[in-house]
Amino acid sequence: MRYHKIPDETIRRLPVYLRQLLLLQQKGSTGISSRSFSNLVHIADSQIRKDFSYFGDFGVRGRGYDIKKLIREIKKILKLNSSCVVAIAGAGRLGSAILGYPGFKKYGFKVSCAFDADKKKIGKKIHGLTIRSDSKINSLEKRKIKLAIIATPSDVAQNVTDKLVKAGVCGILNFAPCTLTAPKKVKIINIDIAMDLATLPYYLPLV
Amino acid sequence: MRYHKIPDETIRRLPVYLRQLLLLQQKGSTGISSRSFSNLVHIADSQIRKDFSYFGDFGVRGRGYDIKKLIREIKKILKLNSSCVVAIAGAGRLGSAILGYPGFKKYGFKVSCAFDADKKKIGKKIHGLTIRSDSKINSLEKRKIKLAIIATPSDVAQNVTDKLVKAGVCGILNFAPCTLTAPKKVKIINIDIAMDLATLPYYLPLV
Repeated sequence: MRYHKIPDETIRRLPVYLRQLLLLQQKGSTGISSRSFSNLVHIADSQIRKDFSYFGDFGVRGRGYDIKKLIREIKKILKLNSSCVVAIAGAGRLGSAILGYPGFKKYGFKVSCAFDADKKKIGKKIHGLTIRSDSKINSLEKRKIKLAIIATPSDVAQNVTDKLVKAGVCGILNFAPCTLTAPKKVKIINIDIAMDLATLPYYLPLV
Repeated sequence: MRYHKIPDETIRRLPVYLRQLLLLQQKGSTGISSRSFSNLVHIADSQIRKDFSYFGDFGVRGRGYDIKKLIREIKKILKLNSSCVVAIAGAGRLGSAILGYPGFKKYGFKVSCAFDADKKKIGKKIHGLTIRSDSKINSLEKRKIKLAIIATPSDVAQNVTDKLVKAGVCGILNFAPCTLTAPKKVKIINIDIAMDLATLPYYLPLV
């Protein structure tokens, strides 16, 4: 199987499929028809089949998908097979909530270190994790931690990004409401809560 | 100006432009060349011009964009001109952090009521807001609140959605890690933190 040249959109949909499959497995299902699956994830059957076609044939005509097998394959593609350690920079309100977010576990993620610039926070424990000074971000290199979450204010986010990249981090989930610049090899996914909310009023019906 | 038939992708990029323009304005800028703007938002100049072309001509050839005017226009398109009141359902760790999120203000949003099912939380104040029972969600109709944020566990998210929709909510920002079903007129934007994180390992270089 060749994993390159796969559209970003497909890679973005694979976790949606995985999430639904994990949910079905949790409920005790072992198989699902492609039509039912399509309805559950709100993505067209043809699109799902196209996405899967990049990696081989996952469905069996007339019998749908084998949930366990499909979970295994998608996890393999997304490199979620081994447990993945993540660092977080910024332990304010949002950072602390993310730090203790229970949803990471099902994908094999564990937040194992947290940094902050605030001296009042450094040394304190949040959800069982000791907050360390952001001057120690370089320690990630030694610990071979490649993934980080940024939950700092935007005015320091670029500086933190530079430190993370220097320490070898090459995947960043950014909650700071700003555009970050990093070398091409670093993949950044942005979540801007307020900005997403700001797209909603457009769709409201006129009163 | 006709505002219909605009691609969702364009509507999704407008807040990105707006965020950058607000940042530039905050720093004291009054104008910016289209090339510099393109570099700042990491979106191709041609794409930006195409997006703006749906609404009229915002740039002046050779002089770039008038920041103040552009902010006003984008806010008008996104219906962000008047202050927008938002409800939140779910006042756990993440919900509480979102409730107190300072980034909403710049787009004119104000979280004005919060609901939870947990009796221990009901009546308590979080970031100055009293948590009310989720059985009171129907009160949103009387208050004409049309936007809501869902930050509940996924097993109750659909039930909460149904209540919100019944109360007249037609825009939902969903943080529960599940796919919600609602009538077509209801616009749902999903933010799944763990799922977004789960797309990152795929991009990590092979060790």
